[in-house]
Amino acid sequence: MALHPPIRHVALIGLGLIGSSIARAVRDRLPETRVTGYDASAAARAAARTLGFAHDVADTASDAVAGADLVILCVPVGAIGAVAEEIRDAISADTIISDVGSSKASILAALQAALPGRHVIPAHPVAGTERSGPEAGFATLFLNRWCILTPPEGADAAKLAALTGFWEALGANVEQMDAPHHDLVLAVTSHLPHLIAYTIVGTASDLESVTRSEVIKYSAGGFRDFTRIAASDPTMWRDVFLSNKDAVLEMLQRFSEDLTALQRAIRWGDGDALFDLFSRTRAIRRSIIEEGQDDARPDFGRSGQ
Amino acid sequence: MALHPPIRHVALIGLGLIGSSIARAVRDRLPETRVTGYDASAAARAAARTLGFAHDVADTASDAVAGADLVILCVPVGAIGAVAEEIRDAISADTIISDVGSSKASILAALQAALPGRHVIPAHPVAGTERSGPEAGFATLFLNRWCILTPPEGADAAKLAALTGFWEALGANVEQMDAPHHDLVLAVTSHLPHLIAYTIVGTASDLESVTRSEVIKYSAGGFRDFTRIAASDPTMWRDVFLSNKDAVLEMLQRFSEDLTALQRAIRWGDGDALFDLFSRTRAIRRSIIEEGQDDARPDFGRSGQ
Repeated sequence: MALHPPIRHVALIGLGLIGSSIARAVRDRLPETRVTGYDASAAARAAARTLGFAHDVADTASDAVAGADLVILCVPVGAIGAVAEEIRDAISADTIISDVGSSKASILAALQAALPGRHVIPAHPVAGTERSGPEAGFATLFLNRWCILTPPEGADAAKLAALTGFWEALGANVEQMDAPHHDLVLAVTSHLPHLIAYTIVGTASDLESVTRSEVIKYSAGGFRDFTRIAASDPTMWRDVFLSNKDAVLEMLQRFSEDLTALQRAIRWGDGDALFDLFSRTRAIRRSIIEEGQDDARPDFGRSGQ
Repeated sequence: MALHPPIRHVALIGLGLIGSSIARAVRDRLPETRVTGYDASAAARAAARTLGFAHDVADTASDAVAGADLVILCVPVGAIGAVAEEIRDAISADTIISDVGSSKASILAALQAALPGRHVIPAHPVAGTERSGPEAGFATLFLNRWCILTPPEGADAAKLAALTGFWEALGANVEQMDAPHHDLVLAVTSHLPHLIAYTIVGTASDLESVTRSEVIKYSAGGFRDFTRIAASDPTMWRDVFLSNKDAVLEMLQRFSEDLTALQRAIRWGDGDALFDLFSRTRAIRRSIIEEGQDDARPDFGRSGQ
């Protein structure tokens, strides 16, 4: 934090899981930084005031961003452009405008179109839970998680350093990549898993031969792992799929081909093909645990061991 | 336990995650019941002797079952028939023969063919972790989990009561259903989720545009949830898919149709269809938590909250 100007005042537009977690993390880890918040929902603003995780909760987005040296838009991807328009006249030429969205190329384009000549540096903290809303946030959400910055070409080095320092101060490890590559990486590590989880939970609830209460009762056989991410915020995820369409469709096509190959192996009783795949998938799990990106306890520690 | 003869001596053939967990649970919760174990692997037998969770570890399956009033086959589904042949002459006419396999119609048929006229009552404790082997078991694995019995028509009522009492004593809730219905229920709650998890982990590791280290690094976005069940025992799961082929293919077909519909919604930008599905999948998660089949902590408590 010594080599670049620290963030003295951050404005958070959107006070859901991510926005409210940033606010809490700043209060814990950057006590000299002022936090102003705003949410389009009056109920969320009221909850935020009660919870007290921001120094101020403003009644308009423009009021919230006035005087901030960093504005982070924590709204669904589809709302980014409109919010950027709304705050355009209230932010200074020196302000960094960032976000937390799960797709980056379309956000970068929307922000640059709405805020030409401004310091736009999109960001994506790869962290979250299935909960939503101001009550769901917590200060340690970003600890040891990755935060990916996708600066446009020619981004100001000092601003980039300030934003990097901000996320590092919240406990995140910061990486940079270009927006299209980010969108491919996240299509496979996040968007496709969510799409598949939503689908299988839908398929299971539509069966006639198996009742919904049976699905729920016997979910410990594997199904319950999928229901967690299929309980994530519907608006956010609708926008993610619409805004990262090409990369998601590409990954989905590959997945469908692989699934069809397995289906054929089952139909023809090709046990060797099944065994080969089932053996090589174990190595990835080990690596994820070694790199600290998941809990090494069996069953995530749910099993009471 | 008062209304039917208790199990005085249980023989466990196969001392992996499930067999060794049964042994440990019996030692904890049925201290007067004798536990004899056997595993086809000499290394597993040696480990079992060192760990000491059984009173005896025999060197052959026949030796292990001698004198037992309950024999539980804890081996991959594909090995059930051969093991049943092996122990046929060593078990008494009074012995209950059960198992723990994840598909039931093919196991019931194999056991009845190998052991005509014997007390065959297949069982499936719906519990497990991604770990394998004698070291992986623990006594509380079955606590508050369901154990499904699939007795054949005309099963002896006293034997059924004894087996029910045995599983209840280990902490499980016992249900009965016929084997074909079990196989449909498990196809959707367990087999299809595993198949999909194995597939997506395979798809992700085969990409050229995204490196494997990127997949691992950013797995907290959703992917890591799938890697846990894709780390399960390959032999066991190969056998499950081959032995429950029809039900798995039926569920897979429905899943593929639903996934294709979502793919189409993404391609054509139909946000309402996405939002509708994403909203109704939340209710299932809530029910699973209400019924005590999953951990209510966000992110299963992994997030450090």
